[in-house]
Amino acid sequence: MKHFLSAILFFALSMLQAQSVASPSKNIILDFKLTANGQPTYTVTYKNKTVVQESTMGIKLKEKPALDANFSIQGSKNSIFNESWKPVLGEQSSIVNHYNELKVSLIQNETNVKMNIIFRIFDEGVAFRYDFPKQSELNYFIISDEVTQFNLTDNYKTFWIPGDFDSNEYEYNETKLSEIDNSKIDMNNGIGVKSIPGKYIVQSPLMMKSAAGLYVNIFEAAVVNYPVMHLNVDVKNYKLNAQLVPNAIGDKAYLQTPCVSPWRTIMISDDARDIVSSKMILNLNEPSKIEDTSWIKPMKYVGIWWEMHVGKSTWDFAGSQNAQNSLTQELLPSGKHGATTENTKRYIDFAAKNGFDGVLVEGWNVGWEDWFGNWKEEVFDFTTPYPDFDIAAISAYAKSKNVKMIMHHETSGSVANYERHLDRAMEVMKKYDYPAVKTGYVGKIIPRGEFHDGQTMVNHFNFVARRMADNKLMLNSHESSRPTGYGRTYPNYIAAEAARGNEFNAWSKGNPPMHEIILPFTRQLGGPMDYTPGIFEIKMSYYDKSKTAQVHTTLAKQLALYVTMYSPLQMAADLPENYEKYMDAFQFIKDVAVDWDESVYLEAEPGDYLTVARKTKGGESWFLGTITDENARKSEIKLDFLSKGQKYKAIIYEDAKNADWQKNPIAYKIKTIIVTNKSKISLNLAPGGGTAISFEPVK
Amino acid sequence: MKHFLSAILFFALSMLQAQSVASPSKNIILDFKLTANGQPTYTVTYKNKTVVQESTMGIKLKEKPALDANFSIQGSKNSIFNESWKPVLGEQSSIVNHYNELKVSLIQNETNVKMNIIFRIFDEGVAFRYDFPKQSELNYFIISDEVTQFNLTDNYKTFWIPGDFDSNEYEYNETKLSEIDNSKIDMNNGIGVKSIPGKYIVQSPLMMKSAAGLYVNIFEAAVVNYPVMHLNVDVKNYKLNAQLVPNAIGDKAYLQTPCVSPWRTIMISDDARDIVSSKMILNLNEPSKIEDTSWIKPMKYVGIWWEMHVGKSTWDFAGSQNAQNSLTQELLPSGKHGATTENTKRYIDFAAKNGFDGVLVEGWNVGWEDWFGNWKEEVFDFTTPYPDFDIAAISAYAKSKNVKMIMHHETSGSVANYERHLDRAMEVMKKYDYPAVKTGYVGKIIPRGEFHDGQTMVNHFNFVARRMADNKLMLNSHESSRPTGYGRTYPNYIAAEAARGNEFNAWSKGNPPMHEIILPFTRQLGGPMDYTPGIFEIKMSYYDKSKTAQVHTTLAKQLALYVTMYSPLQMAADLPENYEKYMDAFQFIKDVAVDWDESVYLEAEPGDYLTVARKTKGGESWFLGTITDENARKSEIKLDFLSKGQKYKAIIYEDAKNADWQKNPIAYKIKTIIVTNKSKISLNLAPGGGTAISFEPVK
Repeated sequence: MKHFLSAILFFALSMLQAQSVASPSKNIILDFKLTANGQPTYTVTYKNKTVVQESTMGIKLKEKPALDANFSIQGSKNSIFNESWKPVLGEQSSIVNHYNELKVSLIQNETNVKMNIIFRIFDEGVAFRYDFPKQSELNYFIISDEVTQFNLTDNYKTFWIPGDFDSNEYEYNETKLSEIDNSKIDMNNGIGVKSIPGKYIVQSPLMMKSAAGLYVNIFEAAVVNYPVMHLNVDVKNYKLNAQLVPNAIGDKAYLQTPCVSPWRTIMISDDARDIVSSKMILNLNEPSKIEDTSWIKPMKYVGIWWEMHVGKSTWDFAGSQNAQNSLTQELLPSGKHGATTENTKRYIDFAAKNGFDGVLVEGWNVGWEDWFGNWKEEVFDFTTPYPDFDIAAISAYAKSKNVKMIMHHETSGSVANYERHLDRAMEVMKKYDYPAVKTGYVGKIIPRGEFHDGQTMVNHFNFVARRMADNKLMLNSHESSRPTGYGRTYPNYIAAEAARGNEFNAWSKGNPPMHEIILPFTRQLGGPMDYTPGIFEIKMSYYDKSKTAQVHTTLAKQLALYVTMYSPLQMAADLPENYEKYMDAFQFIKDVAVDWDESVYLEAEPGDYLTVARKTKGGESWFLGTITDENARKSEIKLDFLSKGQKYKAIIYEDAKNADWQKNPIAYKIKTIIVTNKSKISLNLAPGGGTAISFEPVK
Repeated sequence: MKHFLSAILFFALSMLQAQSVASPSKNIILDFKLTANGQPTYTVTYKNKTVVQESTMGIKLKEKPALDANFSIQGSKNSIFNESWKPVLGEQSSIVNHYNELKVSLIQNETNVKMNIIFRIFDEGVAFRYDFPKQSELNYFIISDEVTQFNLTDNYKTFWIPGDFDSNEYEYNETKLSEIDNSKIDMNNGIGVKSIPGKYIVQSPLMMKSAAGLYVNIFEAAVVNYPVMHLNVDVKNYKLNAQLVPNAIGDKAYLQTPCVSPWRTIMISDDARDIVSSKMILNLNEPSKIEDTSWIKPMKYVGIWWEMHVGKSTWDFAGSQNAQNSLTQELLPSGKHGATTENTKRYIDFAAKNGFDGVLVEGWNVGWEDWFGNWKEEVFDFTTPYPDFDIAAISAYAKSKNVKMIMHHETSGSVANYERHLDRAMEVMKKYDYPAVKTGYVGKIIPRGEFHDGQTMVNHFNFVARRMADNKLMLNSHESSRPTGYGRTYPNYIAAEAARGNEFNAWSKGNPPMHEIILPFTRQLGGPMDYTPGIFEIKMSYYDKSKTAQVHTTLAKQLALYVTMYSPLQMAADLPENYEKYMDAFQFIKDVAVDWDESVYLEAEPGDYLTVARKTKGGESWFLGTITDENARKSEIKLDFLSKGQKYKAIIYEDAKNADWQKNPIAYKIKTIIVTNKSKISLNLAPGGGTAISFEPVK
């Protein structure tokens, strides 16, 4: 009898302690329950198959009882949300935000602390966050750990980079979950500052695929006032545990109620296109806090930048290209300085002639003789140009040519110094009419002991975005923590690097051909990447016979990247003189749009291939990009995305027959055909190749 | 023979490895030598008596060989310096800087690192610093420790406060060196943030006296880009070792050659007046870097401040006087807010009527409902007034009354937040014509893990001084690291608190009667202190019968403090309504100068008594202040400092016969007599009492 009653009681409690919610499509079902000791857990199924087994939830606190057990359910609330919104800049002019929400209100026995867990189930995935309401039982608190778990059921093929608190500029590894091991990575990879905390810690977004063809992606959204979450992998049991990035003294996050954690996200689909095209991360962020967004504009730009990477010129005035050159007291020009007035005017002329919006100039300001590698606090002042950079004359010249200058603020990781100078730096931008800035964080962080991915730095990056917004300035951050959709809330934060960019191809072992076919499934889910495509002189031996570095694509693939890698800020990264040798191919870069009404993901397989078609914002042109990894690829594409009954002139930029990223990367051919939405096109991609197509309506 | 040769060799090396230099008076002799293993050491004698025995010198580096042994002397250079300079504001219009210098150039065997040690011997003491010249062998380096030692010969009576990396607001302990022990201190002392790293670590300046009557003071000067030095005491052997304040990850200082350490100073005299009047610390700092100093002016001020300390009003608008009041979401005025437009105008009227230069208002800006105790990063924005503080109207009103407003920036220790807002905060100051600011650092520092006394914070305090100078604004910092003479270099840094101020008397066990007679021998050697004297309503039971807190002086001693505690920024801290009850005594505060042509220290004994006479800058008036500790004191003073042949009307403000700081503190009497420089005056000080005298020339 006693046993029987216990069983009934247990059953009743179980009912009370469990909740369930499905995606609008019903394909995904999330189950929430409290364990016997009151720990919150969840499971996720997709089409009746368990994808996430019972996984723990909760947080641990410094100097306070952990919020990961002894909870009871106080109540729960289900709701449906289905709205659409218009991004300022984007892949499509309107985004649907449709999910079913479950809010579970928990109260902890003894402490009476209240914590809610909010679940949102979209058709392409699950998101949840911790919500700490205002209460007398919990005001300030310090998070020492998060016990959020992703308890997977399969030994997925996984695209991963090491969990590094300071850098996300790694090439991706493609292994089984069970084979993740940071100690096996070649660390001679061109990354300057590395902070890898353990063998089995990886970064999110983590893209996975099961042998049965199920795609799973784990990430987070709306990382605001919280550190980045990395993932600690139990390689034997396929359990992933949240690994928050610590601060200088080991704490993770300082919070005050009311507050929320970022969203933890699990995207699931048997079609990879659902993941690569998902707007779930953006949807989980707050709407724009900028009322008048008329000053936020997409930009296609050129700049004095690649020429330093290839060694033609230098960032520093003294010209040694030695970043620790402080023994040279006098600032003697070497004649190799890139950011001169004359050279800048040359780029402005090139931009004006070819219809580019902006010109970026790096190395314009004093400090580059001794800026990297020594944790130096006071490097740049962000306001003083080198003597050969006449900022007033350049600003006036750019204005006369209807070209916008793009400012550059390299902080060398000395954030304390940058914050001290930020207001003055913005004054210079406004005085000389620079509408946008590229920031850089190459180096160990100051305040010392902080990491690029900690709460302090997350707050810094978001702070800079907000301050720039106060001054109607656009932001493109490099070496920042990776975006998690905050660009929806501050749409002036138009792009970031925050992954291994094209620059690594200039001087390191570079980015393998599959690199650009993983980024859209990972890094780019959180926001646009300033990848800087468009390199035509693929091999660095062009500049210096002794160099072996090269871009790991064909030229045609460099063109296709303008479509496959969405960004409202796109650089044509190569030198003007290189473009002038291939003006027929360059025509695609001149033509391609950077802001879109519509995007159609036609083919997608992470690490293998990606085919995307996009329709110009406010126009009738379409552009298509398709890319492949190291393997050649043939495909036939239906053009049924084009407008019915409309004829288009399609200019096809494709790999020449004998093209090969390694052996013959520049070989391309261009052909023009007339097509309609009934047409099909055969795509022929070389190893490491791609095809770019523009579709112009024909009257 | 072999032994004999060794002896000769040893002798020759000794000669080569040893140097000596004397003070101009020849009373102090410093000997430098390298030990057998090449460690630099020094000894100091005073009048042929050893005061500092052989003491080690050098630094330890992170990830590099220590610079504390294996040195050879490359060369040495002796020089004499004797000049005078004029401080912008000061105790005297001209300061003599006279010393003999010895510069020893060292080179380390094997590493070839060059390090110089520079000694300066003044009549009142010794100073030395490490100097790291520019060299290819040493560029960037991180100091992990300083092995500087002060190896004393006596068990001195010592006035000490615990070595606390976050606070210098302790009352002084008076014990033998051997009795120093932080664990025996009553920590219920009103200090909010404490970080005491060990039992035997004390702060400098450390004032000592031997049984034989020798006064020794250990301190430092020109702490710039370096942490504060505390002293780790070997209580058995009277050895004091430098204890640098670490940063968040345990490092002490980040330097790049060429660079120098602060000066380590040892003042020695058999007359305490030589120490209390010394300008050695100022002399060891760089001359003013501000060219036009015409805008730097002394200020006597009143303010909305003490009324919050005594509980009459509140800093916060919501009026709870609860610094962690965030549960109250709405900002409902309680009627107790001190910084209202109306109240401010009342203070402006009072200032104008009584000839004060300025009015400080604390609690004028939003944020005070929840500002302290929780390591909160974003507290104040330094620009937004409370709704009942009409800054524009107040600014206009003050201008119409010829009174200057003094800004208040409480950072709550969130330095990162303050630096982000500093430029905007200064804009507000300039817009509303505030010529000076009082900053505050109550709370644990953000960047988290940093201490008030670390290199980061030293740099912050100096940075704020420089930025204020850029904007022609004067700075008075509270809860900063204690000054070490940087006010000579940036004379707009006119004062600091950086010790236990008068405010502690309002709500804690307070400051014992000897407190103000130790500060001039310690804290005030580095620069003026904003002690905020002038409290007339001595006992807090006046406001609330249940209160036992009180100022630990008589009223007359509060007057005397305006002379004994030099500062070009002096507050009349009590409430206008309290002064209005004692207008005859208040007359002294109205009359007393704050900037001086001449200062004469007539009597001095640390912790016991101090008598100072000062001559008004650019005027003929003199003022005298004398104070005693808990013991009554009688003394006779010759007025031979007065101008020969000149008659003066002397108004004497002294303790009444039955006055006593504890039993009858307010009892005072005022008498007027005529005196000349041949006169003598009998001083009669009550327990905890003092006398203030103004001397006005009679025509």
